[in-house]
Amino acid sequence: MNRLRIAIFGGSGYGGSELLRILLAHPNAEIMLVTANEHAGKPVAAIHKNLAGICDLDFSPAPDDLGSLECDVAFFALPHGQALKLAPQMKRGAKIVDLSGDFRIDDKSVFEKFYKLEHTADELQSEFVYGLTETNRDAIRAANYIANPGCFATATILALAPLVGSGITNGRFVVDAKTGSSGSGAKPAANTHHPQRTNSFYAYKPFIHQHVPEIEQHLRTLGNLSDDFVFMTHSLPVSRGIFASCYAEAIDEISGEELRRIYEDFYTNAPFVRLVEGSPDINWVKTTNFCDIAVHARGRRIAVFSAIDNLVKGAAGQAVQNMNLMFGIEETTGLRLIGTNP
Amino acid sequence: MNRLRIAIFGGSGYGGSELLRILLAHPNAEIMLVTANEHAGKPVAAIHKNLAGICDLDFSPAPDDLGSLECDVAFFALPHGQALKLAPQMKRGAKIVDLSGDFRIDDKSVFEKFYKLEHTADELQSEFVYGLTETNRDAIRAANYIANPGCFATATILALAPLVGSGITNGRFVVDAKTGSSGSGAKPAANTHHPQRTNSFYAYKPFIHQHVPEIEQHLRTLGNLSDDFVFMTHSLPVSRGIFASCYAEAIDEISGEELRRIYEDFYTNAPFVRLVEGSPDINWVKTTNFCDIAVHARGRRIAVFSAIDNLVKGAAGQAVQNMNLMFGIEETTGLRLIGTNP
Amino acid sequence: MNRLRIAIFGGSGYGGSELLRILLAHPNAEIMLVTANEHAGKPVAAIHKNLAGICDLDFSPAPDDLGSLECDVAFFALPHGQALKLAPQMKRGAKIVDLSGDFRIDDKSVFEKFYKLEHTADELQSEFVYGLTETNRDAIRAANYIANPGCFATATILALAPLVGSGITNGRFVVDAKTGSSGSGAKPAANTHHPQRTNSFYAYKPFIHQHVPEIEQHLRTLGNLSDDFVFMTHSLPVSRGIFASCYAEAIDEISGEELRRIYEDFYTNAPFVRLVEGSPDINWVKTTNFCDIAVHARGRRIAVFSAIDNLVKGAAGQAVQNMNLMFGIEETTGLRLIGTNP
Amino acid sequence: MNRLRIAIFGGSGYGGSELLRILLAHPNAEIMLVTANEHAGKPVAAIHKNLAGICDLDFSPAPDDLGSLECDVAFFALPHGQALKLAPQMKRGAKIVDLSGDFRIDDKSVFEKFYKLEHTADELQSEFVYGLTETNRDAIRAANYIANPGCFATATILALAPLVGSGITNGRFVVDAKTGSSGSGAKPAANTHHPQRTNSFYAYKPFIHQHVPEIEQHLRTLGNLSDDFVFMTHSLPVSRGIFASCYAEAIDEISGEELRRIYEDFYTNAPFVRLVEGSPDINWVKTTNFCDIAVHARGRRIAVFSAIDNLVKGAAGQAVQNMNLMFGIEETTGLRLIGTNP
Repeated sequence: MNRLRIAIFGGSGYGGSELLRILLAHPNAEIMLVTANEHAGKPVAAIHKNLAGICDLDFSPAPDDLGSLECDVAFFALPHGQALKLAPQMKRGAKIVDLSGDFRIDDKSVFEKFYKLEHTADELQSEFVYGLTETNRDAIRAANYIANPGCFATATILALAPLVGSGITNGRFVVDAKTGSSGSGAKPAANTHHPQRTNSFYAYKPFIHQHVPEIEQHLRTLGNLSDDFVFMTHSLPVSRGIFASCYAEAIDEISGEELRRIYEDFYTNAPFVRLVEGSPDINWVKTTNFCDIAVHARGRRIAVFSAIDNLVKGAAGQAVQNMNLMFGIEETTGLRLIGTNP
Repeated sequence: MNRLRIAIFGGSGYGGSELLRILLAHPNAEIMLVTANEHAGKPVAAIHKNLAGICDLDFSPAPDDLGSLECDVAFFALPHGQALKLAPQMKRGAKIVDLSGDFRIDDKSVFEKFYKLEHTADELQSEFVYGLTETNRDAIRAANYIANPGCFATATILALAPLVGSGITNGRFVVDAKTGSSGSGAKPAANTHHPQRTNSFYAYKPFIHQHVPEIEQHLRTLGNLSDDFVFMTHSLPVSRGIFASCYAEAIDEISGEELRRIYEDFYTNAPFVRLVEGSPDINWVKTTNFCDIAVHARGRRIAVFSAIDNLVKGAAGQAVQNMNLMFGIEETTGLRLIGTNP
Repeated sequence: MNRLRIAIFGGSGYGGSELLRILLAHPNAEIMLVTANEHAGKPVAAIHKNLAGICDLDFSPAPDDLGSLECDVAFFALPHGQALKLAPQMKRGAKIVDLSGDFRIDDKSVFEKFYKLEHTADELQSEFVYGLTETNRDAIRAANYIANPGCFATATILALAPLVGSGITNGRFVVDAKTGSSGSGAKPAANTHHPQRTNSFYAYKPFIHQHVPEIEQHLRTLGNLSDDFVFMTHSLPVSRGIFASCYAEAIDEISGEELRRIYEDFYTNAPFVRLVEGSPDINWVKTTNFCDIAVHARGRRIAVFSAIDNLVKGAAGQAVQNMNLMFGIEETTGLRLIGTNP
Repeated sequence: MNRLRIAIFGGSGYGGSELLRILLAHPNAEIMLVTANEHAGKPVAAIHKNLAGICDLDFSPAPDDLGSLECDVAFFALPHGQALKLAPQMKRGAKIVDLSGDFRIDDKSVFEKFYKLEHTADELQSEFVYGLTETNRDAIRAANYIANPGCFATATILALAPLVGSGITNGRFVVDAKTGSSGSGAKPAANTHHPQRTNSFYAYKPFIHQHVPEIEQHLRTLGNLSDDFVFMTHSLPVSRGIFASCYAEAIDEISGEELRRIYEDFYTNAPFVRLVEGSPDINWVKTTNFCDIAVHARGRRIAVFSAIDNLVKGAAGQAVQNMNLMFGIEETTGLRLIGTNP
């Protein structure tokens, strides 16, 4: 197989950083373009200093004529709103994985309400497939365009999908989710200022986080979800990781063992989901594409915990997982990233 | 007023450390005894090096004959089970503030189930008053013996008390609580080993944390609490702080403003509860006796966030607050500890 | 004694934050003005949320007519270059403590080289006294204008002053200094972006840090300092604290005990210097005005370690210490801030 | 080439953890044995949870009869003193890489003084080659037994070797070194207790760290080193990483460019040494086998900074690098571990 010619748009952020880390070592990938307007002309390794001695590429400006770009797949790792402009310009035939929220929401009015952006590429929306590999594998295989899930959405849907799919609950869920600071991106901001963040923990965007609609939309393709879904985001004083604590109520009493069996069945063929005892820990998934999940039941009360690396399974790793599927490459190729202890 | 003669039992742990910090600067306090068996004879400042230049006391061994100890008030900052042995030996007339869980649970069988200890001082249980100042002020004023609340219980009850008291919800709550590492005490252990803790976040003791019964017991004195109370504990990679995210459902739709008014009314005379916008942050309460609370509503869904310093409002600060009340001293005396930014 | 009328210029930064924390509890202080142009009109506690329930002041804009400001003492906690403009406008009679570097360097050309600023208030330079209390107490008592030392300079000079003063070394020193992230101020920047800072350690400004000339200038008032002074700054992934490791060579062999005696003698009357065994630790001095120092000798080799809180002894605490001296108030008033364990 | 049969003694610590991470992905390696007495019989992934889904091995007890163990190479990742007992029992022909300090010091009396252990395998000492690849490559290629350098020693020698080798200095050095908490190993202890370590920085073992003699011994094979070598160790509040700040004095003035050229020449063929601008940062080398170095000169004063991951280049990575050389495998095989940003 020839190597896939890959273009990365938005290579200087953390999503781009992790795409580079993964694709530079991917046996079927050849990075032909990595853009970063503000760093155009500079070596990639001048920004991502971890790649010194690993990567000889330079950042390019965004090409003027996207339509003539001869790539097999383009990754958009750009701020929300940019992919809406770029996707329609791409040559037909090139596949796209968009890591932003631009094409995740089918209902245009919902998108515009949560993202405060006009959806200017409505005609492409129906071609985008939601790229949560574990619940959407066949559709992804057949897709050309992927809307890569949000980091919170990934942790949450992977935790809830077996519950929603099994129909054992009343469809009402509370999700208390926490993220590391890299989820805010590579640009310094007040909420990621080290002196304050390092000893902090707080909630933000109560009831209005933009990942709510994609979680609701996708879970409803799997089963019953009540309208009063509660999803709350918090900020952790770590660099990487998302942890979702999910609470549900079973219609009938269920044991922890029965609950675990439902998850084992659901994730039988999911190489990146690990069912663990007690609790997952972001420490064990950081820098990897794994999602660790633990389940607990007591009477009719259910608790499910999931942990991912927000930049890998929650972004770049999942993006490459989707690329693999779209091109018929074995799903784990380039993604058996091994975590560290400690 | 003469200074109160104070004995601190268990002065080498973090609870003892914070009792010392607060009481050394308290205008009505004189520490006459601070025990630490393993450090007996050593200067307090050899262990609590922050107190060098501040404190000239030495640690004592636990006295053989408690009954002849002439103190006005004893603080027990000891592992669970110790106060059960010491309290019955104390001279009548000396007041007691017990920071452990030994006397928090009225139902002996529930205590023994959660603490795996025999309750050997059952005859004293009814004399112990639950020391959550903001909800129990009058009883505390009249008390001789105080069961000082657990750190998680403090953050949770302060967040939920106005809801439970108002009767506006269906009585069903989910509490997702997180604690800093100092909650595990001053002794090194696997879960507080820095290389792993510093990049970690995980859940522990699902459904079985020993603070559940004291939360349930006390909230039920204030109003309706459903039997399916969900309380979950997690570990944060910070030294100090507890953050509780509490989810409830209103019987009728309620606005954020109405909800806030309920809290303002409930905490009108509570100098250590601050209602804040958006979210509290453990960064703003660390080293202080404040509990910061924010409330949000959307339709019938309610979210309440609370943040405290687990060692101050969640332990030593609240213990001194109770001492002040028992002795008719102004509640805030010695407790206007000012936090820092950053 | 009437309370001193105090004006704080630049109240929204970390220096201002700590001045507020200390002066709000100072028995001889009354804050009459606290400026912050970008936050003018807002409550102080909206920015320094730690002060909610403590401070009812609002931020003011900088007054148009400084000359008519009736204050006893003004603290300038502003970016470098601002005090140069404000100091000459102040009414004579008001005392000044400048926390910036504007008036620390007597040699105008050296100042301009290191600060890249024109020294526009040269006529006032000779009235400014270098405010390192422990080495300059008498001059400070007699002063009207204080140039408050830099944070690195404070830790370094306190570590080296007894050596330089005693003449036991050859005058050649290597200082390896490390600072927490709050030293970079309250404004977010690339070097304080949490995702990267939290797992980082690096050196910066090799050989050219702007604190070098004030260290050299002041140490030379105490004794012999060689021209090849080596001073290197590094960034620690903590919020607060400076640690200086200082290396010297004795002319003759010296024991650790002899060395310690030199330090004990030098700091006999210094209530904020604590000589400790082994090593100081920033953990034990954070939020306090203490400087902890340990000394070691082996043959002719000498190592001295010092630790301070950069925002307290390295800035606001020392500023208030100087205020106390200038007004004949006991030096420790308002400054017996007790640290915490942990 | 057949895969090398590999035995890891001491697989449950952090050195063992990293050996597993690297060797599980090494194309020429097959792990036939991994011992951990206290965890014998348990899955490796029950302890190193990062390896769940990656590693199916179980921990074994240490074999009774080492002499019949048919392995190509044994890694000893054991506490100091254990390799002294095991190495003499190994079958001749099996190669050994010892990650402890047992065979690093040629002078038995020096070893015994610094390690407080009797050197009971003196007859093997001369067969052990010091495994700092970049300065000892040819000897390592010819070796059967490798004494893998200490983590501090690796960072220090790599920083100083070009200086010592070039003869441009007076041979007198001050090294101020800092380590992350994982350097203390996987067992909880007072100095790695999270509540205190997370906001701390302190020095330890002044003048007497056990890495001093191996640094002196090895540097003296490269050139002139004065007797008054100063080496000081400090503890950083991060999990991984060593940073060494090294100070020297040139005999004649030297420019930064000239100095850099000396380092470029020295490390021409060293794939894991990267010369960087400004300063290295442990953030850029964590989880990798790289050593990043920056050099600065001003007049005759020289500063060299180096950064490594203490568990990789400072332990397991370097151990595998030595294995590669001993078996004629390309030096970088299995070691092109890519770091992350952030």
